[in-house]
Amino acid sequence: MKSDSSLFNVNRRTLLFDLALLPALSGLPFSAMAQTRTTQDGSLGSWNEGPAKQAILDFVRSTTDQTSPKFVPPEQRIATFDQDGTLWVEHPIYSQVVYCLDRVPALAEEDPKLRDIEPFKTVLSGNREAITKLSLHDLEKILFATLTGMSVDDFDAEVKRWLASAKDGRWKRRYTDLIYQPMLEVMQYLRSNGFKTYIVTGGGQDFVRVYSESVYGVPPEQVVGTVGGTRFGYRKDGTPFLTKEPKLLLNDDNAGKPEGIHMMIGRRPCAAFGNSDGDREMLEYTEAGGGARLMMLVLHDDAQREYEYGPARGLPETKVGTFSQSLYEEAKKKNWTVISMKNDWKRIFSFEENG
Amino acid sequence: MKSDSSLFNVNRRTLLFDLALLPALSGLPFSAMAQTRTTQDGSLGSWNEGPAKQAILDFVRSTTDQTSPKFVPPEQRIATFDQDGTLWVEHPIYSQVVYCLDRVPALAEEDPKLRDIEPFKTVLSGNREAITKLSLHDLEKILFATLTGMSVDDFDAEVKRWLASAKDGRWKRRYTDLIYQPMLEVMQYLRSNGFKTYIVTGGGQDFVRVYSESVYGVPPEQVVGTVGGTRFGYRKDGTPFLTKEPKLLLNDDNAGKPEGIHMMIGRRPCAAFGNSDGDREMLEYTEAGGGARLMMLVLHDDAQREYEYGPARGLPETKVGTFSQSLYEEAKKKNWTVISMKNDWKRIFSFEENG
Repeated sequence: MKSDSSLFNVNRRTLLFDLALLPALSGLPFSAMAQTRTTQDGSLGSWNEGPAKQAILDFVRSTTDQTSPKFVPPEQRIATFDQDGTLWVEHPIYSQVVYCLDRVPALAEEDPKLRDIEPFKTVLSGNREAITKLSLHDLEKILFATLTGMSVDDFDAEVKRWLASAKDGRWKRRYTDLIYQPMLEVMQYLRSNGFKTYIVTGGGQDFVRVYSESVYGVPPEQVVGTVGGTRFGYRKDGTPFLTKEPKLLLNDDNAGKPEGIHMMIGRRPCAAFGNSDGDREMLEYTEAGGGARLMMLVLHDDAQREYEYGPARGLPETKVGTFSQSLYEEAKKKNWTVISMKNDWKRIFSFEENG
Repeated sequence: MKSDSSLFNVNRRTLLFDLALLPALSGLPFSAMAQTRTTQDGSLGSWNEGPAKQAILDFVRSTTDQTSPKFVPPEQRIATFDQDGTLWVEHPIYSQVVYCLDRVPALAEEDPKLRDIEPFKTVLSGNREAITKLSLHDLEKILFATLTGMSVDDFDAEVKRWLASAKDGRWKRRYTDLIYQPMLEVMQYLRSNGFKTYIVTGGGQDFVRVYSESVYGVPPEQVVGTVGGTRFGYRKDGTPFLTKEPKLLLNDDNAGKPEGIHMMIGRRPCAAFGNSDGDREMLEYTEAGGGARLMMLVLHDDAQREYEYGPARGLPETKVGTFSQSLYEEAKKKNWTVISMKNDWKRIFSFEENG
């Protein structure tokens, strides 16, 4: 069940699905970071009445009511959320991969030799068709080159700059605007009921930590992601600093998710949210704890307002395939809750009116 | 500056210092776990007036007073504490090493072949002199054999059982009774002023997490330690579980401490407490953040009430040597605060009267 060892867990089919929507490899005007847009009252205002909303309400009631046989003490109230496709848009390509591709020109500026070396040459050509054909191995080279080799402070500043300017191809908005408003409301609702909310993502831990607090209200210490090593060293003036190393410590996807949860949290979640096969083991591990449990999967069935992919509603599994038919069957069998974006959510994004 | 790669960071000189005080390798009566004994009012009642207490009070005042130029927002108030020798007794041997040695008979029960294999044969012989002569490599074999290969739940239960019964050789008390009361008060004082307190230990993360909440008031998710990998799998009935693997992911000592802090917390501490060369890089990394900072080192200079070792007061450096003369010089040069157990602490343990 262990996934491959690629550092940032790129699903090649995802990458190839529609790279034509990739934004131009150039900076857009610098502007302020997005701020947390969770509801203040902890309500689920963007959710339609239905089994998904009801499952959340029932779970919270049974875990927080002291007279309930399923009452959970506050310190054990842990909820974990996958990010890509669960909290924000993952199609047509993971935002972090766009970041890496966007970084290549600056990398070639620093090291002009890269202009003649593949796969950097192809990325710099701007030839979309050729870029979509890059192999997984090529993509790994780009990820390692753009995500390691600098200090953690420089990386942090660079990601901040990019997030403030880069925009997606479809909505022409910052990536941090493409957060699912109903999921922000669930996080806030759980927090207002004493839960600690964690992000447990296959994406890079250092990448997500840059914006997790301002965008999701989740502090960096509550982000579990794919972890690369760092190396402690001293600058010439004696100041200590950490350098990001091309060394994989945890591939936080599939079986790596419960392993990462154990390493970083040391407690089993009571609630877990995902949207793909990469979240299967996290949901199984959550369920196995006994007592009141909430396992939810976001189904992308709304082509008009977001995207339509996955096994339900007769969609061909091969289209994207991250949410497999077998996971869908497992969810049905175990009474996990499948969230229909189309039916359960009044709106997808905060910039939309409630439908 | 990187330390060796031994899994649980055993200092051989420490081990050999006085293994004669090792308790008998047998269980003592089972009894309830120790409970948190932090003061409720957040005062520093076990501290004498002096520069160490004053440094703590000044630091908290300047970081929590909104009119102070050194004010730190609550979410950035991170304080990290080494454990062995900083929060509890580390002499004559780390408690976790005692645990591992105590586990060997049960291991041989499960796998009788071990009775004829070194170093297990020597440990089973009960010959103290031979045990003290075990090499670091032998000791690593014992650590791997006793700390890995079981489920995380079984490990947790086993450590709980041991802590409830095992007693140290000098005070004839449970190991979790040998916590430094003044340090518990500092942790509580910082927490009551909005700080998150973390343990950052060279000891095994899973080991310390078993008792961190009941003993220190530090939840498992705020324990950073030496990390071994786990492996996700399924029991025959389909239940998922995690097995502890003999694979080192982080040696949380020396340079590994700031690296571990970055991985597990993702923020730089404002305050750090240690007692040995293994804490040097953590204190340097903490100091380098700028703004109000508190770096403290516990000096073991109280042979009567605890132990006397380290560089100060003319003690020969070779006696134990974990707190080197060079660290002492660095602390003096940088105005880090050295805590004299003898002069700064009214009492060492909660079971003593204030002196």
